[in-house]
Amino acid sequence: MSHARKTFHLNAFLMGVGHHEAAWRHPRTEQRRVLDVKHFQELGRIAERGKLDSVFFADGLAVGPRIARNALAVFEPITLLSAIAAATEHVGLIATASTTYNEPFNLARKFASLDHISGGRAGWNIVTSGNADEAFNFGYDAIPEHARRYDRADEFVDLAVRLWDSWESDAVVLDPETGIFADPEKVHTLDYRGERFRVRGPLNSPRSPQGRPLLVQAGSSESGKEFAARHAEAVFTAQRTLEEGQRFYRDLKARLPKYGRSADDLKVLPGLVPFIADTEAEAHALEQEFTDLISPDYALRQLSTLLGVDLTEHALDAPLPPLPRESDIEGGKSRFTLVKELAEKEELTVRQLIGKLGGGRGHRTFAGTPEQVADELQAWFEQGAADGFNIMPPYLPGGLEDFVDRVVPILQERGLFRTDYTATTLRGHYELEPVESQFTPARTQATA
Amino acid sequence: MSHARKTFHLNAFLMGVGHHEAAWRHPRTEQRRVLDVKHFQELGRIAERGKLDSVFFADGLAVGPRIARNALAVFEPITLLSAIAAATEHVGLIATASTTYNEPFNLARKFASLDHISGGRAGWNIVTSGNADEAFNFGYDAIPEHARRYDRADEFVDLAVRLWDSWESDAVVLDPETGIFADPEKVHTLDYRGERFRVRGPLNSPRSPQGRPLLVQAGSSESGKEFAARHAEAVFTAQRTLEEGQRFYRDLKARLPKYGRSADDLKVLPGLVPFIADTEAEAHALEQEFTDLISPDYALRQLSTLLGVDLTEHALDAPLPPLPRESDIEGGKSRFTLVKELAEKEELTVRQLIGKLGGGRGHRTFAGTPEQVADELQAWFEQGAADGFNIMPPYLPGGLEDFVDRVVPILQERGLFRTDYTATTLRGHYELEPVESQFTPARTQATA
Repeated sequence: MSHARKTFHLNAFLMGVGHHEAAWRHPRTEQRRVLDVKHFQELGRIAERGKLDSVFFADGLAVGPRIARNALAVFEPITLLSAIAAATEHVGLIATASTTYNEPFNLARKFASLDHISGGRAGWNIVTSGNADEAFNFGYDAIPEHARRYDRADEFVDLAVRLWDSWESDAVVLDPETGIFADPEKVHTLDYRGERFRVRGPLNSPRSPQGRPLLVQAGSSESGKEFAARHAEAVFTAQRTLEEGQRFYRDLKARLPKYGRSADDLKVLPGLVPFIADTEAEAHALEQEFTDLISPDYALRQLSTLLGVDLTEHALDAPLPPLPRESDIEGGKSRFTLVKELAEKEELTVRQLIGKLGGGRGHRTFAGTPEQVADELQAWFEQGAADGFNIMPPYLPGGLEDFVDRVVPILQERGLFRTDYTATTLRGHYELEPVESQFTPARTQATA
Repeated sequence: MSHARKTFHLNAFLMGVGHHEAAWRHPRTEQRRVLDVKHFQELGRIAERGKLDSVFFADGLAVGPRIARNALAVFEPITLLSAIAAATEHVGLIATASTTYNEPFNLARKFASLDHISGGRAGWNIVTSGNADEAFNFGYDAIPEHARRYDRADEFVDLAVRLWDSWESDAVVLDPETGIFADPEKVHTLDYRGERFRVRGPLNSPRSPQGRPLLVQAGSSESGKEFAARHAEAVFTAQRTLEEGQRFYRDLKARLPKYGRSADDLKVLPGLVPFIADTEAEAHALEQEFTDLISPDYALRQLSTLLGVDLTEHALDAPLPPLPRESDIEGGKSRFTLVKELAEKEELTVRQLIGKLGGGRGHRTFAGTPEQVADELQAWFEQGAADGFNIMPPYLPGGLEDFVDRVVPILQERGLFRTDYTATTLRGHYELEPVESQFTPARTQATA
């Protein structure tokens, strides 16, 4: 075992009883667990057993077309992760939350709370909510424009960081003799007046163990990549081939210097949906079992929403009809383009496309032995396509257990992954530097 | 022990290391626990050991004038209660949240999550946020008008209830054979269009164990009382004498019939700050120790905010200056009037008033033996001033432990309080009927 080799990072992307859209219909899962917090606490403990960097929950603010056919997210992620924090000690906890439909003060505070509660394990996957069904739940008649959502997200994150920074790390004095709770010189009123937000501050929460949550992002459109280069410390991305992964990796890292950041400041984590079995043939057979359980009517509605065309009456064994251009899409642009290119490049029928997307909605699916899965991860890592991986078990908890108990030991043996936690915070797991409040040096200068 | 006797309800109102504003300076507390989630999980377990109905956290969305002198709330209550849910099994979990500075969809969902996570133990203390410092954190230049805040709260709660009702209790089918996750006939689009909110719905969370959180309210102004009569199932209130308590109790219960509700549908819980010791003299001495630790400068700033006049330069041993009328107060009207009347009736100097308010900010403080505390509660309950009590331990955890281990057994011996939990939900603890979705009968009729 070589300890000199550079190691990578692993996030477990958790969803109900699995990422495969038919997971809850397969005998390897228990459907009712989608409603049971203990299921998710157990997943957190399994991830921790594998020394994973973090667990992560996606989120959407609407039911959409899922009602009849698919198990939706039952729990709001921050609330759920607080309960998981109470059942774990080390693993990072990344919650998705929208900059379009939250107030900066409230959201900054919730993440500060989660970071306090978890002892410094909170992460925020920043999304701009590109789904029309979400807009309808917040007083809009349509999705706010893509550019407008990203502009708001930029200002939102800047403001949230100021709120987290509003308490310097040594502001809390708690001296019972003098009766001083906090040093007012180290708690900063912001008087923030931006284009969209006016917030006086400070935040009503002392600086949390990490200072701020790990900032994560997952959009791969042009504005998504710029946003990631400016703000994100980890990026989840859907890349289907090594070459595409390498291109995305180089592209994103090249954008960092203009924001004064270096390559190590942002970790790129492509998604992988692993079907794991003793032999390659068994792994493929397992994947096929899940594919066979997909409901075409549900899949067509999902695909229609994603592509912005109505496919619900479209023939399953025909190719896709003509699609709009990415510039006309107001929702998730990068996922649109990924699916469009996949269908065109591989000349897929709608039925074939649905099967390909069923595992991870565009993320790469890989079926193989534990060694083969480890080989794939190693190749992507060593050939410049990844700093780590976003593991999306197709069924839960079994798919996560297989990865943790069968793949992780191989990675550890090869010196590619930690054998125990060496840091106490999520930022520490991802080998990121601690962050100081932006107000600390200013004060030091003023009193010098 | 008589089991025939009607029993009352007990809520533990938790705050940092105690309700007394100088609690964190007293040797009976450990200051650093205000930052430690384990402290709050322990408090939940202590409350559960005493078979209490619930624990409750207040909240405000600003630091205000507290920074230097007082330990503020570190945690956002819903996030905190989710971590407490993971450490307890029975006790109800009531979180304060504002209708003025939240989106209905987001807040309804968070409470649905907490109710799912806790197995039906969530409660919502509905507040309208009457503090100017809060307004400044949400883009306002001043507190939104009292009447406007209550109008918004009315619409907010109506809409939140519809969102919770949007999934009928048997909507989730989860049939792996047919691939049906939920019955679309039992999941309701709302298309809500009110004066302030437009929300399509349904909520993105199946109906939670209680259907909706227990609805709690604590304002005692005229609009506060009407709001409580219309929506609340439990009311926290500050009443200083038995006679005032009886008057408030009769007043509130008399308002229920016009909303089609009966006296049992709303539980009145006056606050009590108990100093408990072996002898009455020791209990009074203990209270005095806490009073002596109050910082006058901090207390004057708090009192200035509450009364709407600047007292920070006012002589401590003089009476209060002339005060505004309640109708000119845009913040918390009932607390203003309570403090004004207390000062006038008892002809208090500012220093005396600060001492009286230090324990529970206007709530009744009582120092005595465990038997005397039990006698007080029994008297208020049997003489028509209370359905239960909001116990506000002046220091924590010791003050809660003393109440649970020394007062509760006496109440149980007298047949006034349960000796074990008999219900599984918070609504059950408070002897309230389960609630059905408002859409259930409509559908039944439509298909009949």
